Amino acid sequence: MKGFAHRTTVDDALQWVDETARSLPAMRTESCSLDSAAGRILAEDVYSTVHVPGFPRSMMDGFALRAEDTQGAAPYNPLSFRIVGTAMPGQVVSTEVGPGQAVRIMTGAPLPQGTDAVLPVEYTESTGETMLASGEVSPGKHVGRVGEDILEHSKVLSASRRLRPQDLGVLSSIGHSLIPVHSRPRVRVLITGNELLPAGSRPVGVRISDANGPMLTALIQRDGGVPDCPGLIPDDPVALLSAMQEPADVILISGGSSTGQEDHAPRLLAEYGELAIHGLAMRPSSPAGMGRLGSSVVFLLPGNPVSCLCAYDFFAGRLIRQLGGQSANWPYRCRKLPLNRKLVSVAGRVDYARVRIIAAKVEPTAVSGASVLSSTTLSDGFVVIPADSEGFPESTVVDVWLYD
Amino acid sequence: MKGFAHRTTVDDALQWVDETARSLPAMRTESCSLDSAAGRILAEDVYSTVHVPGFPRSMMDGFALRAEDTQGAAPYNPLSFRIVGTAMPGQVVSTEVGPGQAVRIMTGAPLPQGTDAVLPVEYTESTGETMLASGEVSPGKHVGRVGEDILEHSKVLSASRRLRPQDLGVLSSIGHSLIPVHSRPRVRVLITGNELLPAGSRPVGVRISDANGPMLTALIQRDGGVPDCPGLIPDDPVALLSAMQEPADVILISGGSSTGQEDHAPRLLAEYGELAIHGLAMRPSSPAGMGRLGSSVVFLLPGNPVSCLCAYDFFAGRLIRQLGGQSANWPYRCRKLPLNRKLVSVAGRVDYARVRIIAAKVEPTAVSGASVLSSTTLSDGFVVIPADSEGFPESTVVDVWLYD
Repeated sequence: MKGFAHRTTVDDALQWVDETARSLPAMRTESCSLDSAAGRILAEDVYSTVHVPGFPRSMMDGFALRAEDTQGAAPYNPLSFRIVGTAMPGQVVSTEVGPGQAVRIMTGAPLPQGTDAVLPVEYTESTGETMLASGEVSPGKHVGRVGEDILEHSKVLSASRRLRPQDLGVLSSIGHSLIPVHSRPRVRVLITGNELLPAGSRPVGVRISDANGPMLTALIQRDGGVPDCPGLIPDDPVALLSAMQEPADVILISGGSSTGQEDHAPRLLAEYGELAIHGLAMRPSSPAGMGRLGSSVVFLLPGNPVSCLCAYDFFAGRLIRQLGGQSANWPYRCRKLPLNRKLVSVAGRVDYARVRIIAAKVEPTAVSGASVLSSTTLSDGFVVIPADSEGFPESTVVDVWLYD
Repeated sequence: MKGFAHRTTVDDALQWVDETARSLPAMRTESCSLDSAAGRILAEDVYSTVHVPGFPRSMMDGFALRAEDTQGAAPYNPLSFRIVGTAMPGQVVSTEVGPGQAVRIMTGAPLPQGTDAVLPVEYTESTGETMLASGEVSPGKHVGRVGEDILEHSKVLSASRRLRPQDLGVLSSIGHSLIPVHSRPRVRVLITGNELLPAGSRPVGVRISDANGPMLTALIQRDGGVPDCPGLIPDDPVALLSAMQEPADVILISGGSSTGQEDHAPRLLAEYGELAIHGLAMRPSSPAGMGRLGSSVVFLLPGNPVSCLCAYDFFAGRLIRQLGGQSANWPYRCRKLPLNRKLVSVAGRVDYARVRIIAAKVEPTAVSGASVLSSTTLSDGFVVIPADSEGFPESTVVDVWLYD
């Protein structure tokens, strides 16, 4: 048992994460189907190879005709047209429309040859084969022109965009059924601790149930990774090393991250890979670490669940998001709100303070030990107190990162 | 072909949606596993049947001992203890610890009988069976007490909460492996329009590819529903009625929602169920409708994709969210920003204006026809202009709902 000789600053650790993300081989990409593309990150710019629409179409229900023929039409001077057909969406009217003729047309139908405008139905009266027009239209009126929505060769969406519902509509409309997206990083979650029972077990005696596995799984999914949780790993160097050497883009090891004799992960990482950072100037999460093992990036997360959440959110999530082509930034919304009482910290370390929002003011959550996970479920979010600060006096406006 | 004799106000339509949501039978609930519970809506309050932790445990690596025995210990006055064992997490130390004795203890290990405090390792020196204490501790120091995280019988999470990653950790820690959540509403998506090719097809001639199916699927998933898209439905009353009568909580019909002769859905809904609202005082989406058919709630969405998106977001999504136990409110974030030029509207109808945010100012998106879906992918969000307004002058601060 010994402490940390040196604690890395949060800024230096963040820099390591970002440099590591940049140093990795180019991100993998893959094709995904339209119906699974929502929320995925586009891997390349998308250009259209077609005009949308590819034909002039009616924007209204009414009559397609030659605009010049309507000149002078008015309620007191209705002009007569001969109805020579009906244009329905998806169908071509084969007859060429001549002067004084009109074609009944539905919204979305292609404009028949010879016509250049649509007179809305409310300016017409029709009986049998005759239509009386009581209004004028100019050429192109109520006509959606070729490429009005999307021009052939135009850029439709840019790489790195997180795909929204309407993006999928646009991609579908230009004939993209397979979408090039960044692959989701594979994240292996190794939960250690001989005191642990499997997630969701009723705690018995001196054994507690794994809280970090379900929490990390959800965090990884939120950040666009694919979690892989092989179950509890015994506190045994051989078993742990074997689990660490399975292929993965990122390995998260929960528990045994500190400097005690039962803390195997840091020693194994140093021996078989690179233990780049171990011990951080922050609270909670000070006994966290990170490094490389083969082609995997490894994060050592403390077993205390608040520390685990905090270390994940500061470092592991940031890498996972970047590996998947996303912004490094937190997915949490941020609100600027005043403190309703002072928030104290110790200079020299970053503090992750859980807070509640009460009547639009920020109140530090009373119970805040690193092992008290309920402090994060009772809280609305957290405030980060920088290392050069001893906290903030009452009424200071702070950035609150919202958990929801 | 005829227009709408009456257009329902948006407020009245929203009221219909909310009243319909309340009038439906109690929401179904189900159990889901911990690893699929992220983002689900909790169906009932959850109470703990256990203390977490269920035993006093060490918060530090160090020595468990009797606090009173450390009285007077200081660097210049180290007190000697006999080491009588080691306490590891998950293991019970069977020996009762007596005066002047100490047990080496790891973070998370249960406190041995007879001890009431933990002296951190940095205040100790140990050789063989002897430990020299150079600091004092008070009773309970560095000990996590029984129920410190969660007390037996306490409420852990409240019904209607959207489950966060840390919530799953807490639920796991109290032994909940199956979580009571609201069932996701089943939403059937019927895409009509003879001009349509299946989603993702390359448009050919006068046929266009279905944009609304993929868009609606993603919107429904976002709002917690389970989409069911049986493919394109021919513009034929018999085929449409048959598709409308399949069981579903909500039915969305895209296309044919207006008053033309090929607009079958409103007539079928009126004949076989209830066409409660048809025609809205808004733009786009004016030819939208809603009603009931058997136990399903039916929304008639215009085929024009911007109208479809708008009508979904105003009405259908609102119902789907409520059916799944969520807030009726939009999931979009809202920002208050000034307009960089005036935003015009017509009094008497609600306008859904797509906008871009440029240098923290709001600019109306130039192209804005209801058929131009790319206007929504080029936009950052939208501004709702109320029916009693003719728009806003330049520099007005407006609410922008962000698409991302």
